[in-house]
Amino acid sequence: MPVFTEYSQSSRDLRVLPSFATPLPRLSPKFEPAGPEEKYEVVIAGAGPAGLFLEVLLARYGLTDSSLLCIDSKPTALKSGQADGLQPRTLEVLGSLGLVEEILTQGCQMWEVAFWNPKQASVSNGYTNGEIRGIERTSIVPDVAVAARFPHEVTIHQGRIERILEDDLKRYSARGVQRSSRLTKVLIDEAGDPDFPVLAEIESPSGVRTVRMKHLVGADGAHSLVRRSMGLKLQGETSDFIWGVVDLIVDTDFPDIRRRCAIHSDNGSVMVIPRERIATGEYLTRLYVHVQEEVKPDSDIVAEEGIEGVRKSEARARREKITMESILEQAQEVLKPYYIKPISADAVDWWAAYQIGQRVSERFVQQDSKGVNRVFIVGDACHTHSPKAGQGMNVSMMDSYNLSWKLIHSLHGLTPASKPGDKILDTFETERQTIAQELIAFDKEFSSMFSGKIGAGDGQECLTHEQFLEVFSTGNGFTSGCGIEYPENLLVEKASSEGIVHGRDYLSGILRPGRRLLNVKVKRHTDGARRDLQDDFPSTGRFRILCFTSADLLTPTGISSTALTHISTILTQFPAGIIESVVLHPLESNTFVWSDIPKAVKTHSEMRFYNGTELENAYKIYGVDPRKGAIAVVRPDGYIGTIAELKDIERVWEFLKGCLRTL
Amino acid sequence: MPVFTEYSQSSRDLRVLPSFATPLPRLSPKFEPAGPEEKYEVVIAGAGPAGLFLEVLLARYGLTDSSLLCIDSKPTALKSGQADGLQPRTLEVLGSLGLVEEILTQGCQMWEVAFWNPKQASVSNGYTNGEIRGIERTSIVPDVAVAARFPHEVTIHQGRIERILEDDLKRYSARGVQRSSRLTKVLIDEAGDPDFPVLAEIESPSGVRTVRMKHLVGADGAHSLVRRSMGLKLQGETSDFIWGVVDLIVDTDFPDIRRRCAIHSDNGSVMVIPRERIATGEYLTRLYVHVQEEVKPDSDIVAEEGIEGVRKSEARARREKITMESILEQAQEVLKPYYIKPISADAVDWWAAYQIGQRVSERFVQQDSKGVNRVFIVGDACHTHSPKAGQGMNVSMMDSYNLSWKLIHSLHGLTPASKPGDKILDTFETERQTIAQELIAFDKEFSSMFSGKIGAGDGQECLTHEQFLEVFSTGNGFTSGCGIEYPENLLVEKASSEGIVHGRDYLSGILRPGRRLLNVKVKRHTDGARRDLQDDFPSTGRFRILCFTSADLLTPTGISSTALTHISTILTQFPAGIIESVVLHPLESNTFVWSDIPKAVKTHSEMRFYNGTELENAYKIYGVDPRKGAIAVVRPDGYIGTIAELKDIERVWEFLKGCLRTL
Repeated sequence: MPVFTEYSQSSRDLRVLPSFATPLPRLSPKFEPAGPEEKYEVVIAGAGPAGLFLEVLLARYGLTDSSLLCIDSKPTALKSGQADGLQPRTLEVLGSLGLVEEILTQGCQMWEVAFWNPKQASVSNGYTNGEIRGIERTSIVPDVAVAARFPHEVTIHQGRIERILEDDLKRYSARGVQRSSRLTKVLIDEAGDPDFPVLAEIESPSGVRTVRMKHLVGADGAHSLVRRSMGLKLQGETSDFIWGVVDLIVDTDFPDIRRRCAIHSDNGSVMVIPRERIATGEYLTRLYVHVQEEVKPDSDIVAEEGIEGVRKSEARARREKITMESILEQAQEVLKPYYIKPISADAVDWWAAYQIGQRVSERFVQQDSKGVNRVFIVGDACHTHSPKAGQGMNVSMMDSYNLSWKLIHSLHGLTPASKPGDKILDTFETERQTIAQELIAFDKEFSSMFSGKIGAGDGQECLTHEQFLEVFSTGNGFTSGCGIEYPENLLVEKASSEGIVHGRDYLSGILRPGRRLLNVKVKRHTDGARRDLQDDFPSTGRFRILCFTSADLLTPTGISSTALTHISTILTQFPAGIIESVVLHPLESNTFVWSDIPKAVKTHSEMRFYNGTELENAYKIYGVDPRKGAIAVVRPDGYIGTIAELKDIERVWEFLKGCLRTL
Repeated sequence: MPVFTEYSQSSRDLRVLPSFATPLPRLSPKFEPAGPEEKYEVVIAGAGPAGLFLEVLLARYGLTDSSLLCIDSKPTALKSGQADGLQPRTLEVLGSLGLVEEILTQGCQMWEVAFWNPKQASVSNGYTNGEIRGIERTSIVPDVAVAARFPHEVTIHQGRIERILEDDLKRYSARGVQRSSRLTKVLIDEAGDPDFPVLAEIESPSGVRTVRMKHLVGADGAHSLVRRSMGLKLQGETSDFIWGVVDLIVDTDFPDIRRRCAIHSDNGSVMVIPRERIATGEYLTRLYVHVQEEVKPDSDIVAEEGIEGVRKSEARARREKITMESILEQAQEVLKPYYIKPISADAVDWWAAYQIGQRVSERFVQQDSKGVNRVFIVGDACHTHSPKAGQGMNVSMMDSYNLSWKLIHSLHGLTPASKPGDKILDTFETERQTIAQELIAFDKEFSSMFSGKIGAGDGQECLTHEQFLEVFSTGNGFTSGCGIEYPENLLVEKASSEGIVHGRDYLSGILRPGRRLLNVKVKRHTDGARRDLQDDFPSTGRFRILCFTSADLLTPTGISSTALTHISTILTQFPAGIIESVVLHPLESNTFVWSDIPKAVKTHSEMRFYNGTELENAYKIYGVDPRKGAIAVVRPDGYIGTIAELKDIERVWEFLKGCLRTL
């Protein structure tokens, strides 16, 4: 267009940059490192998915390089990660940070699971001994059977996820991860400096140095030095199930090679995990292969060590024999009559052999003498389990996700003033240790069933397909990450929903304190935009009051109007911007205007006010009666904290006062 | 998991990097600049959206820094762009390059348009003279009324789009845009070097240099030196409608400030364009304000210059009086009884005043003496129009999109061998000039209606709301970019669809040579993944054969099987990978396996073979009879080239031979 007069403010040019997360307000004194010692507020040991994710979160919440240090013993970021699976819940969380797109488009979306079992003999046609009866597809089911914003898992190289996290980190941190730096010693020395009581020795190519900090987080893997310094061990045991895993480009006529498959044959078990496309345009496949070998206990050894001892020593012997070739041969045996082989001599990307084990640390934190939580462990440092259910990277990242906002609230002085020993920080262990225990129990059942035989029911070790499918389906809450439910604690008021929320199908979205808020599609009042409700719950460390107004919204003296006005008052009692308000309405018509409803809605929620029934029926999905409405408080991590009736604003106020400092 | 043996190929670590577009094969000799002169295959003048987009595309197709140069006279990338609107079709194209995500999440999605008109007096209640009757909302309609993958427009700062393009460019080009470099002279000098006949003088801080090239593309704006060097002018005229435009944070009680609005009042017209959220958390609004002023021709001047001359000189006089304050005052007049003002003294970001004009260049290319297309113009260099319909940046980028693949095919020797003067390159002007002409005609109608009055029908200048809405709706094909239809040419065989495709509602998806392939949701056979069909038509410069198999797919001797086998043969007749095959089937059941259908499908289309009716009914949407099937050839830009019956493989072969070199 032919412009003849033009004026532009210089700030306008800044609009070309990507948006940054809004840091949280800090009410505690600014951190100014003083004295000759190197000091931080938080040090993270280990930059795998758990450590890196924690650093990204804390940096986005507002910790700068002078407050926050993350070290890693490896010299570079590029590494051969083993994990490859992201659950729907992890995708939601990455989405809440704007980090999910590359993963969705470049990863492999796993939508379906196929179950293969030994071919059933027809009644008239018995198999003779020695004849291979082969396998047949029993069923195909959705990979994710619960409600989720992304109704599929994604598989992608773990190193790629780390790179995506590190790219984002670099926007907030000039230093990034300090590499080639290894923790060599950790102790709590309150006498030396009561405010920075954690003392760590770090070894790097330039020598050994001592660093002091308020908090140390060990994301330093299964052999965690941080955990060992806390005097803790992973408890549990390693089974004698041995598995091989191989990533390769396959040549096969097996029909379901691009589906996740659980294959049980007379010759053993294989799990197929389709993987992402690589630069050549080819697609990777991961195979988990149960290394099948007859264990025939030698009677002399049995006499000496007992059956258990024999099994373990047999397992040790077997694992030394495992090679890439033996894994591939075994996979071929299981898949018969189909053929499967690497497409070329160099088509194998990576392979490994492992023994299944489920172990978990008894404690996840260490306190100082005043009861302040000083040292934390996350990820493999506090739990290990089998890769079958695709949990590893997910649970580890979710440990960090849970810890991150509690830690920053504590550091920034946003938690309720209390005696030393921030109660909010206590909930990290309460919540994550519970989940780890439940998970390990599930994984034990799941993976040993997976290593067992499915057959015609001709022996005790056999398992029916129906039994297997049952565990698979009920386990979907875990394997999707969407069924995680935190136990009752300061941040979770379980009983609050009774009489307000109707229904118990929490996996389908019914509101439940301790569970995450499911995404629903809603239509925004102010502009008619179709939105994902979860997009108003970004991971910026804020609490949200989600108000389900009732059908009387347009009545100035109704309970909805009153509740909205009260919510507005609550918002002013806390540090500005630390609580956001999201409002839904159940009205059929969108023709009412701002002046028809309390002013508070436009003031606090102009861009977060929705028709909650036009696109999807959010009231129904969440179990809220549109005639009565409800208020839910949603924590910064997207989990429901408490639920109240519209008229019970007192409950909302009391709950929030327990979570946040008031003005 | 506790791993005890592990092996990893070094190539595995490369998997952490973002994927790159696969470059096109090059059959012509590699370009090796020889001699003392600075030489390129392509030089682009101007790095606005049109020039930058062209450079990104050519770099992704395979042109390296030694072949490709883009210069821009400005010293930095950060600039105050005026354009802010991206149409659904442009979003689709950006999506086909993996560049749409940030725009979708950070821009403002415009889903709805509200129409406001002078308040109707109730029958019993006439207005007295001088009384302000104010405005009322007549209706709210969807902003995008045609079928599109993204059923909304997006508004976002033009500079941000340029930055996104430049970020991507940097992955393929070490040099990026050469800035502070201005074209000062252009001529065709075949005597000097017949292969690099275009000679340009470039001025930069280090001095003036001469550069030779095969092709020059002028993306150098409305005052294009490239166009002037070709001896061409923009033809058309500037109206006397004067508008002001202002970007600001508003304080208002106008209910539809977050919707796109067309407001006609007794006091003039305003168009509201909601804009993106900025770093403060506030949301921008753009207002287009018709600067209303009585034109009372002075009888003396009328005598001298005629009515037209008077109008023009009046307009010149009026535009000098326009200030930010006058624009805002006028907006306030129109919006009465609502108030509207900047939320604070520094809330105005940018403002400008302009006169509406629609002009287009007669030619878009210049040939050398042998008929080779040497110089091209794109974007504002070849057409200007009003910003009302949100066309500017979109049409400009689509010029480049159209040119890019034709140019690279020509340079890489992928076009059919012919006498000098590549016929494929001729189609750039044929196609884009037609669109520009149609667009200018539409824009003229649209914007003058917009500047006219809507009222109670009490005068000739008045326009009913119904008339306005009609133009708005029929114009949606243009304003969405989804209704663009290229004319008959070598790459568009219009008549081919007759008798094969049923229906004429092309805006809803019915296949039509010259129009783009609409997106549909399909379920992939091999893994059950839900996909967007357009994702198999990425902008990588490849042609695609889209085969709609018929219900007889499972019959080995049926027409579907025969067609698939023939398609497979066609693929081998062209340079490897330059044609891809996408296959849909209309069968209800997905239980058939690879061995039930021709081998060609797994070989060529394992990851591009879909159930075409389970999620959306692609056959119905595209107008293809599932009993008969069809074949569509889709050009690298996603537009349909030709359509054939399944048995008429000859047509497919002949069409492709006209587009591509055979082996």
